Parts: sequence; C-alpha cells; structure tokens
Amino acid sequence: MSGLSHHEVVTLLLALAVLLGVARLLGEIALRFRQPAVLGELLAGVFLGPTVLGALAPGLQADLFPTQGHVPLALGALTTVAITLFLLVAGMEVDLSTIWREGRAAMTVGAMGVVVPWVLGFGCAYFAPRLMGAEEDADRLIFALFVATALSISALPVIAKTLMDLKLFRTDMGMVVIAAAIFNDLVGWIIFAMILAMIGGTAGFSISATIGLTLAFVLGMLTVGRWLIDRYLPWVQAHASWPGGVLGLALTGALLCAAFTEWIGVHAIFGSFIFGIALGDSRHLRERTRATLDQFISFIFAPLFFASIGLRVDFFSKFDPWLVMVVLAVATIGKVVGCGLGAKWSGFSDRQSLATGIAMNSRGAMEIILGSLALEAGLIRERMFVALVVMALVTSMVSGPLIRLCLKQRAARHFTDFLASKSGFRRLAATDRYAAIRELVEHGCRDRKIDPQLMTALVHAREEIAGTSLEHGVAIPHARSERLDQPMVVVGVSDAGIDWDSPDGEPTGVVVLIVTPRGEPELQLELLADVARTLHDAKRVELVRKTGSLTEFLACVKSDLRPRAEQQAHTPA
Amino acid sequence: MSGLSHHEVVTLLLALAVLLGVARLLGEIALRFRQPAVLGELLAGVFLGPTVLGALAPGLQADLFPTQGHVPLALGALTTVAITLFLLVAGMEVDLSTIWREGRAAMTVGAMGVVVPWVLGFGCAYFAPRLMGAEEDADRLIFALFVATALSISALPVIAKTLMDLKLFRTDMGMVVIAAAIFNDLVGWIIFAMILAMIGGTAGFSISATIGLTLAFVLGMLTVGRWLIDRYLPWVQAHASWPGGVLGLALTGALLCAAFTEWIGVHAIFGSFIFGIALGDSRHLRERTRATLDQFISFIFAPLFFASIGLRVDFFSKFDPWLVMVVLAVATIGKVVGCGLGAKWSGFSDRQSLATGIAMNSRGAMEIILGSLALEAGLIRERMFVALVVMALVTSMVSGPLIRLCLKQRAARHFTDFLASKSGFRRLAATDRYAAIRELVEHGCRDRKIDPQLMTALVHAREEIAGTSLEHGVAIPHARSERLDQPMVVVGVSDAGIDWDSPDGEPTGVVVLIVTPRGEPELQLELLADVARTLHDAKRVELVRKTGSLTEFLACVKSDLRPRAEQQAHTPA
Repeated sequence: MSGLSHHEVVTLLLALAVLLGVARLLGEIALRFRQPAVLGELLAGVFLGPTVLGALAPGLQADLFPTQGHVPLALGALTTVAITLFLLVAGMEVDLSTIWREGRAAMTVGAMGVVVPWVLGFGCAYFAPRLMGAEEDADRLIFALFVATALSISALPVIAKTLMDLKLFRTDMGMVVIAAAIFNDLVGWIIFAMILAMIGGTAGFSISATIGLTLAFVLGMLTVGRWLIDRYLPWVQAHASWPGGVLGLALTGALLCAAFTEWIGVHAIFGSFIFGIALGDSRHLRERTRATLDQFISFIFAPLFFASIGLRVDFFSKFDPWLVMVVLAVATIGKVVGCGLGAKWSGFSDRQSLATGIAMNSRGAMEIILGSLALEAGLIRERMFVALVVMALVTSMVSGPLIRLCLKQRAARHFTDFLASKSGFRRLAATDRYAAIRELVEHGCRDRKIDPQLMTALVHAREEIAGTSLEHGVAIPHARSERLDQPMVVVGVSDAGIDWDSPDGEPTGVVVLIVTPRGEPELQLELLADVARTLHDAKRVELVRKTGSLTEFLACVKSDLRPRAEQQAHTPA
Repeated sequence: MSGLSHHEVVTLLLALAVLLGVARLLGEIALRFRQPAVLGELLAGVFLGPTVLGALAPGLQADLFPTQGHVPLALGALTTVAITLFLLVAGMEVDLSTIWREGRAAMTVGAMGVVVPWVLGFGCAYFAPRLMGAEEDADRLIFALFVATALSISALPVIAKTLMDLKLFRTDMGMVVIAAAIFNDLVGWIIFAMILAMIGGTAGFSISATIGLTLAFVLGMLTVGRWLIDRYLPWVQAHASWPGGVLGLALTGALLCAAFTEWIGVHAIFGSFIFGIALGDSRHLRERTRATLDQFISFIFAPLFFASIGLRVDFFSKFDPWLVMVVLAVATIGKVVGCGLGAKWSGFSDRQSLATGIAMNSRGAMEIILGSLALEAGLIRERMFVALVVMALVTSMVSGPLIRLCLKQRAARHFTDFLASKSGFRRLAATDRYAAIRELVEHGCRDRKIDPQLMTALVHAREEIAGTSLEHGVAIPHARSERLDQPMVVVGVSDAGIDWDSPDGEPTGVVVLIVTPRGEPELQLELLADVARTLHDAKRVELVRKTGSLTEFLACVKSDLRPRAEQQAHTPA
C-alpha cells in the first residue's frame, strides 16, 4: 500500500509511537512544572536522538531512527505536514481585531518590539558577524537580515499562557501585550518570508516576483480571502456534514495555501499560517470545531515535529556557551528595551513597562520553527540553531517568574494543588453538616500532627456565623488556624446529599473543607473563589458527587467545561 | 527539514490538498444522496487517478500524482498511518458488551453470518477458482481462504448508519444486527490475520509462531490490556493536560500495537483495531475525547486513504462485469441466507429475518480495506480487487432501500428537507401570534399557487382549538390541507419574541409553520416531532432566534448538540 517494505513499515510505526509517546510524556512533565510543553517535546528528541540515545546505544538508536533509506524520508514528510498544520492552528489564534481594539498602545509596543530588536540584531550581526555565530562562508547581509528577524519575533501561545498563569490576561496590560504580540508575529513572519524569497533560488522566480507574490498573497488572504471564508462558512456548515465540512475546508485550504507559498519560494508553513488567520477570524467558526482542530494538531502533530528537531541535531557537541550567551543577551536587551519603551510611551508605569518587555521576550515554539527553517535553508548552521533554541527556551521559562518578581505578583493557586494524595478525598458517611465537617477534619488530620477537636471547633464556629453552602449542592466550610503552615484541603462527596441549608434548597453533594494558615487571609479567599469557580456548573457537580477516589475526582474537575481561554493555557507551545 | 526537495514538497502538499478536497466534496455529495461517504471518497480517487484524469490529461495527472520518486513514497507512508488510525476509530466503536447484552440472538446471527458465507465462499473459490477470479498462478487454498473471509465480513459503521436512517437502530432487530455485526467484524478480522500469517514469509516468524502471537495479542489486549487501560485512564485524565493526555495515549498505543502486529507478520491495522476495541470499551473515556479522535480521523485521514485507493488502480480497464456479478451474487447469497436463518431461529418474523440478512450484507469501508491489503500482499490481483470494491459499494448502497421495501418502511423525513430556499425562512415583523401565522403563510405561499387567505384560516382554526407553543420559546402552528401535494414548511424567527401563551410563560422566538397534505396524517406527526426534537434545547433556540437567513438557520440547527448516536450516522464509512 505504501511502497515501504514490511521492515520499513514496522520501523516507521515504532519510530512514530516512541517519538510521540516520549514527547507527550516529557511535554506533560514540563507543563507540570509550569513550563511550556515544547520544552519537554524538544527534550524528547534530544533524548532519543544523537545527543543521548545515540551516544549511549548507537546501534539501538540507528535501528529505531535510521538516517538512510525510506524511513527518514517518510518521517520527514510527516513532520513537514505536521508543522504545516501546526501553523494553521497558530494562525487561527491570531485575532486581528484585538490589534484594532487595543489601538495605539498595542501598535506602539508591537512596532517597538519589532524595530528595536531588529535594528540591534542587524547591527550586531552585520558589524560583528563572528561574534554572532556567522560561519566563515556566510553571506553577511543575508545572515544579518535573518538574525535581526529571528530576534524580533515573539511566541503568542507562550505569552498568552504566561499571562493567564499570572491572572494578567484580562488586564489592560495583558490585552496590550497580546495585541502587540499578534502584530509582532504577523510582521516578523512576513519579513522572514521576504528573506526566504531573497535566498530562494530554487523556486524559479525572481526575488521581486516572489516578494510581490508574497505580499499579494498576504493582502489577498487577509481581505478577499477572509471575506469569502466568512461568507461561505455558514453555507458549508448548513449543507455539509458536521463538523466534517469545516474540518475538510480548513485542512484543504491550509494545504493549498502551503503548496502555493512553497511554490513561490517562501516556506509552506507561511501559507497555512496566513490561511489560519483568515479562517480563525470568521465569527461563524464554531468553538467546538476550533477545539477539535486545535487539540488534535497541538497534542499530536506539534509534539511529533518538535521531537523530530531533537533527532536531527546533536545538542551537546553543537552547544557553544559563548554564542548562547551572546544571542540570549542581544535578544533580551532588544526586546525588553524596545517593548518596555513602547509601553512607557503608552502610559504604563515603570514596573508595568518592564513586565511588558519581559512578557514579549518569550520566544517559545515560534523561534524554534523559524530556526529550523533557517537551518534547512542553509541560512545558519547547527551551532547557531542550538543557540537560538536555547535562547527560545530560556526566554520562555524565565518570563513568568520575572514578571512576578517585577509586579510583586504570585502565581495563581488552586485548591487541587493542596489535596494530599492520602487524606485529600473522602466519600462521606455523615448525613448532617456538622458531622460531615467533623468527618472531613478527622480524615484530613490523619497524617498531620494536629488535634482534630480544635480544628473542628474552628470550622463549626465559622459555619454558625453564616452557612457556607453555594448553589447546585456545593458547600465550602472553612476556617483559619495558626497551627498550619500549609493549607489543609479535603474533598468530601455524598451521593445521597446532606442538608446544608443551601440557598436553592438542594441537598449538598460535594463538600470542600478549606483550612488555611492564619497569616494568609488572601490565600483563603483565593482558594474559596477557586472552588466556587471550579464547581460552578450543575452538570459537573452531578458527576463529581459520584466519584470514588481522589484520582477520579481530579479527572472529573479537569475537563472541557472550562472556558476556552483557560483551555488555551494548556495547549502546548 | 524533510529530505524532500523544494519541488517535491510542493507536489506533496498540492497532491494532499487536491486529494482531500475532492474526496471530502464527493463524500458530502454521497451523504446527500444517503449513500456512504466512502463511495464519494473512492470516486474522488478514481476521478483523480489513472481511470479518469489519467486518461483525459495524462501529463497533468502524472505531475500531480507522480508514481516514481519520493512523493508517492511519502504519500504511501501517510496513507499507511491514516488507515492505521482509521482502524483505531473503527475499533473504538466495537462495543463488546453489546454482544453479551443481546445474548443468544446476536451470537446466532453473528455466527451464521460468518459460517455460511465463509463455507459458500470457500467452496466456490476452491472448486471453481477461475470462476471466482483466481489468477493462473494463485495458490488455490490460500486464495479460497481469502475469498471465504472477504465474503464473511460486515461493515459496522455502514450498518449502523443504515439502521439509524430507518429508525431501526434502537429496535430489538437493530440491536441484534449491531451486536452480530460487531461479533462478525471481530471474528472476520482475526481469521484474516491468520491468513496473512500463513502467507507472511517476510516477517521471519514461522506460521505457527505468528498465529500463536496473534492470538496471544488479541486475548491479552482484550483482557489484561483492556483492564489496564480502564484502570489507568482516570489517572491520565487527572494528571495530564486535557485532552492531550488521552489523545497521546490513544495514538501512541495504536501505533505501538500496529508496529507489533506488523512485526509478527500480520498487518499493522490489525494492531490498532484491537487496541481501539480495548480503549473504546473503557467507561472512563470521555465522549468529547472520543469525538475529537473520531472526527479528525474519519473526516481527514479516512478520505485520504480511500481516495488514494482510487489513485492506484485503474477501475475501468480492470473492471470485469462477469466477475463482479459472480462475487456480488455469492457474497449476497451467503450473507442473506446465513444471517436470515440465524434471525429466523432467534424468533424473528420472515420479513424481519430477511431485513436482518440484507442489513448484514453491507460491506462498506471494511471490505475495501481488506481488499487493498490482500492486493498489496499479493493474495489477489487488481481485477478481483475491483470486483470486491464494487461488491462492497453495491451491497452498502442497496441495503437501505431493500430493508425499507422488505419492512414496508420509509426513510425518516425531516422538516428541514421541506424548507424552500426562497420562501422557507422569514424574520418576523409580526408581534402577535395570529399576525405571525398570517405573515408566515403569506411568505410561504409566495412561489406556490395557493390562496393564503384560506390557508391562514385553517392554521388559525387549529390554533384556536389548542395553542401550539412548546417550551423555551418555540411554537409550531400547523394544519392539513388538500390543496397541497408537498408539505409547506416555513421558519419564522423573532428576536423580540411573540406572546404565544406558552406553558412556561416565555415569549416565542422561533415559529415553525407546518402545513401538510391532508392525505398524510403520519407525515404531520413526524414533522412536528422532528421540530420538537431539533429545537428541544434552550441554548440552541437562543442561537436560532438570532439567525438572519435560511443558510444561517440550517447551520445553526446542525451542530454538536445532537446525541452521539445521531452524529455517528454522519461519520463517513
């Protein structure tokens, strides 16, 4: 069926399975530590590639990921398609209207975030090419153009996730940063496409023809194309099967545009990115369709691509600490100064301006993709590629903590973070509310050295002042105690229900006991609000009250009922 | 990035875009005519392949789908992965518990549905190999074993869709047929795996080792594997990002099992099919995750695979009418007689037994997949492959109409089928119910030669007997008239709302006027029930009342709010 031999099919499937499995696993671990998933996915490739596995067990590594023959070719074709579709999803998240909405501030920050790093990068690379890692035989102008562009892009998904983690997403500053990053991304990619056009001798077009066609394509897609999609999407949804019509349209369009931009001498992914912007902008595109595309592509295709990068490069032997430091320094200075100044001019405080600069400094997946294209096009060598990848990861990883430091903020805390694996969950035997509180306190104190009597009295006392029942059968009895260093949170469920004197008269099925250290009043409020938000939905409470273990409880509160913005924070980037 | 040249990347992306676009388009057209999508998808390949485009414009065809070099190799690898994942989804729909639930009847029908066609097929192919299309040099035993197996499988998705179209899915007969088809599929694929094992000299295992390993794999996955997945799925859902954890697990597992079965000498897709059964059986797998996998794979990967089949074979020159007829006859006789007898013995009436046999006779996508594997393995040649494909399509296409004839049933009718493109939708200006009725009747009569006065009087009269308002702001004024041959259905929406004296006191935002021919009382009931079902959900009504055209209305009532069973009917098969 495939032109591949029996042995090659086995190798291809096994290679895909191992690559995907390890990439997803390390991606999850990275997310656990509040790092972008792309970090873990890339490390999966480093681990499975020449850097680690190739050094430890060269025979096994060569069997699993051969570099000769049909398998690497097939794997290469698959990852090309994967990254093309990933850029479709990345484009769909670019909401052009945000830029207009945020107006002058977004434009100022965005433009400064391109211009300053670009000029700084170009200057450094043109006048000190060796320092910036140019090889002996590199064309100085082309190299400087590329470095300038590479340093001026941002990574929208990572930035969005960081802001959400810090609860800054919906603030003025957050929206300006997002809008500026969108602007930044769009301009950065267009400039990069121009550079590809300038070096692309293979396509058989003159430079001016390629640049002209590229600009015509971008303008056409973002005006006529966008209008056509918005106009005919309801028609497709009305007359084609759901959601197959729109899925087919999205992928066919993305592949067609990708083929077109590849043909004119710009890379394929540029076409699917621009198509994604045009498609994602339509108000007729349903959230569910968007989520299906996003989830499948972000969780399957993207990990495959990023892991495959690690396979191709030896990150150990090509690691040049001096170059890494220089790239990191130039990149960070350009971005933080540029965006910081832009924010300052737009009326932000000093601290906010600095935070804006740090936020925009995240490079994440986008820099890695751009670097890998440049490597493939011969613009840079592996040494520089490794430096760009490290820079991308470091800027993404430090951005959250640095903004926190800068704004004196702390990361959002969730009540689920404090559920002890042994004493965090209980199916309640109690049938009235005071007995239920006692039962939960006793359960929670099992592996703590605390007197349950006293603690129970505290919670009872609070309960008598005013009932802690919410709607839909949820109650959050709580108290503060000086005996605790860490919050004690215990979830109790009761399928039969407990009379908690609730506002809607419903019996209570889910009880979350929260006792926080006396010294942290804001922590108590944060956790109470988090419980209320998490168990806001009646359907979810219905499911939760039937769970039988902490694992089942956690699985139940993590699901698609969350709003889209919060879900985005979990897509790998 | 890919090892492919610039030109090859362009060709690959363009080929994928054209293949997917045309396959989805023709697939949709097939669904429109209540035919399985696979029919259109296959025709897309026939059209783009040597059969049509190759004959009309050989140069263009060869440029777009070259048969030499890296592009067909990459395309082949992609379609191998695509079909492997499609079988994962097919496996997920196999619900083993259905077999136990339907008990003896399902087993009888299922077993007879394997045994009779198998014996008949084996006999014909062994004793009259030339008649059944064996080539001169074919091994008679192996050929007969394959033909016997090919004739004994069914296609669960097509059968499920046919039964749902006929509203038989939830009847006794429907559930027995589904359970029997599941049993049939499982046994058929295991037998086919055995045959592959018998001819598989490439794998380096002895026949007995391959058969032993296959059986061990099936037993292990359906017991220990199933248990492990069910046990650890909540853990994955609790601790990994949602739904990325489960998506990653599903694909990694499917690819690993596929690599394993390919390695032991059975085809890759068998591994992912069995893994799919084990995974789909878990009660912890969420509907949404299932839908994401199902939609992406069924609407993107499956069309690519089925279209690629058409690319590889010339369906015109290899079409042997005599062989097609023989295969069709032997296949149909074996299945209808076998399953019919099984149903009869289980206590079904004559008509129901015949209908059961006809339902089980659908071969759909499964036969085509099996045939393409056999072609690839050298078990059959293109002539026989074409005959199998035609048999698969014909049995699937005629099954619905024949069952209808047999049970004197008719296909379900939907009110949306009768919405005229010009006069089917109106934004209401009226503010009271009688005026609204008049407005809708007048709008509906615009391009019909009917007096609106009289019609309005009929509907008013009916309205006065008892109000036609439902919950959530929906009303269905209706009447019967002898002046009509076809129902007149008009949708009216009012954002402001109309007082319709509704049971819940809500103002009415969506009005569906239904006037049916006097001679068809059951049609009126059917359409009224269909409106009530479609507009049952308050959220949907909220969206519908804001629509501004018939297209927007149709797009709005077609969406993910439908129950899963109905959605399945729209997945291509």
